[in-house]
Amino acid sequence: MAEHPTFRSIGLVGAGLIGGSLAAALDRALPETALRVHDISPGNAAYVAERHRRGDVVGAIPALARCDVVFVATPVAAIAGQVAELLRIDGRAIIVDTGSAKSAIVEAVAATGVDPARYVPGHPLAGGVTTGPGLARPDILTSRPFVLTPTDATAPDAVASARALLETLGASVVEMAPDAHDRLLALGSHLPHLIAFALAGMAADDDLAMLPTSFRGIAAFAAADPQMWSDIFRANAGELRAVADLFKKRLDLIAAMADEPAPGALLEALGDARMRTTALEESE
Amino acid sequence: MAEHPTFRSIGLVGAGLIGGSLAAALDRALPETALRVHDISPGNAAYVAERHRRGDVVGAIPALARCDVVFVATPVAAIAGQVAELLRIDGRAIIVDTGSAKSAIVEAVAATGVDPARYVPGHPLAGGVTTGPGLARPDILTSRPFVLTPTDATAPDAVASARALLETLGASVVEMAPDAHDRLLALGSHLPHLIAFALAGMAADDDLAMLPTSFRGIAAFAAADPQMWSDIFRANAGELRAVADLFKKRLDLIAAMADEPAPGALLEALGDARMRTTALEESE
Repeated sequence: MAEHPTFRSIGLVGAGLIGGSLAAALDRALPETALRVHDISPGNAAYVAERHRRGDVVGAIPALARCDVVFVATPVAAIAGQVAELLRIDGRAIIVDTGSAKSAIVEAVAATGVDPARYVPGHPLAGGVTTGPGLARPDILTSRPFVLTPTDATAPDAVASARALLETLGASVVEMAPDAHDRLLALGSHLPHLIAFALAGMAADDDLAMLPTSFRGIAAFAAADPQMWSDIFRANAGELRAVADLFKKRLDLIAAMADEPAPGALLEALGDARMRTTALEESE
Repeated sequence: MAEHPTFRSIGLVGAGLIGGSLAAALDRALPETALRVHDISPGNAAYVAERHRRGDVVGAIPALARCDVVFVATPVAAIAGQVAELLRIDGRAIIVDTGSAKSAIVEAVAATGVDPARYVPGHPLAGGVTTGPGLARPDILTSRPFVLTPTDATAPDAVASARALLETLGASVVEMAPDAHDRLLALGSHLPHLIAFALAGMAADDDLAMLPTSFRGIAAFAAADPQMWSDIFRANAGELRAVADLFKKRLDLIAAMADEPAPGALLEALGDARMRTTALEESE
């Protein structure tokens, strides 16, 4: 591809829903670019590699060191070690991860003592309840923002390359600081999942068939992978706690309004929430 | 209809989503039965009556006194007054309401001093974010349980007739005490909506486009009608507060587990919630 001379070979660590979707987007946008896939599950790696016209499986992470860009799309608790392993190898690969908690990963990479210049922390605001490569598709990435959270230690050239590649894939790239990302995700994803897990845990066996649509709609997010969410909650525990406290205050505030003699304050609060929901639906 | 000699004429107060769906179910199951519709919006009443092959509009509630059964499907704050108005008229109509908070309505009817023997408190576990008759369809009622909450003051014959009619419409009837209903709905519907309104209220204008799927999926329930939900929260404020307190404790518990050195307790809690979600999905 004349437009992208530098993307001859892309590496992928983690052949799950996000990794598989990245592979599918690469296959669509850069059909001449080779894809080298590693996963602790050789079956998942083969599944994704076979669906890419220039895909192959590699047995170990160091085999990816000569790629132009390596995506690390593994569970949050595994990412920092794998990024550091790639950075430690002499090479020029730019490393982009996809973890949902950025400060903890950035700090863990820094703590290994390797030079993080080639590491561009990232997070596609994508995914859903399902995990694994079976439902992977490029649209999972291209329909939502892909956040990059470079730090002072990140080489500007590395950010520019990561951005160029992601935009070629069709993603809409947004840059922000790691802590700003973590606050946004605590509100936008981690708290909603905490809510879902807490609410689902209140479903008594005898009531299941009787629970209405709204309970089911919220609890549905608790069908997500417990291991994945345990990692995320632990990696962003501070921001999660802060936003959960704000949320509890709002719950209390609205519940207290329902006890007031006049409905005015309650109506206003519910009307404001409805207005924000409408604006949210229009923002998609 | 030889099987239902007593259902020659059905009344309907409230031509909204639930009333319209009742009318559609009546038209399908009992095409020979007349339907008399009243709504404070004559347009809504006409809309529903015109879609029923034997429907007509009546201008005032007393005109329904000679029906066999009258459904009162109006906002929660309006129901008790309308039920009492119907009971006060000499007649034999059985009155069934559809309000989402039962104890408050039952008590308000009792407080008027009328004999409530012909009043069968009810609530279809149906409906959604939308209101109004435009999206009414019989399946909204037949796909979910229809709860009846008779008290010691309710005539057993009236309950039997209400049950027979609802089952003819295809609803699956469940009987429980008003306070048991209110606890179940506080958990299953009122708390989920309170959560949605509280979460939606936290969406800052600048973040809208960046908020992920889980936030959107939960906040979507806050697109519901503020007036309707203000009425419901106020009518069931005690149970709502109690279940909101339990929910906040679960939030705290899980958030605290995310701060523990080992992930065991958190993994177990999330795994339990996921198991309940799976059981919930299988219960539909």
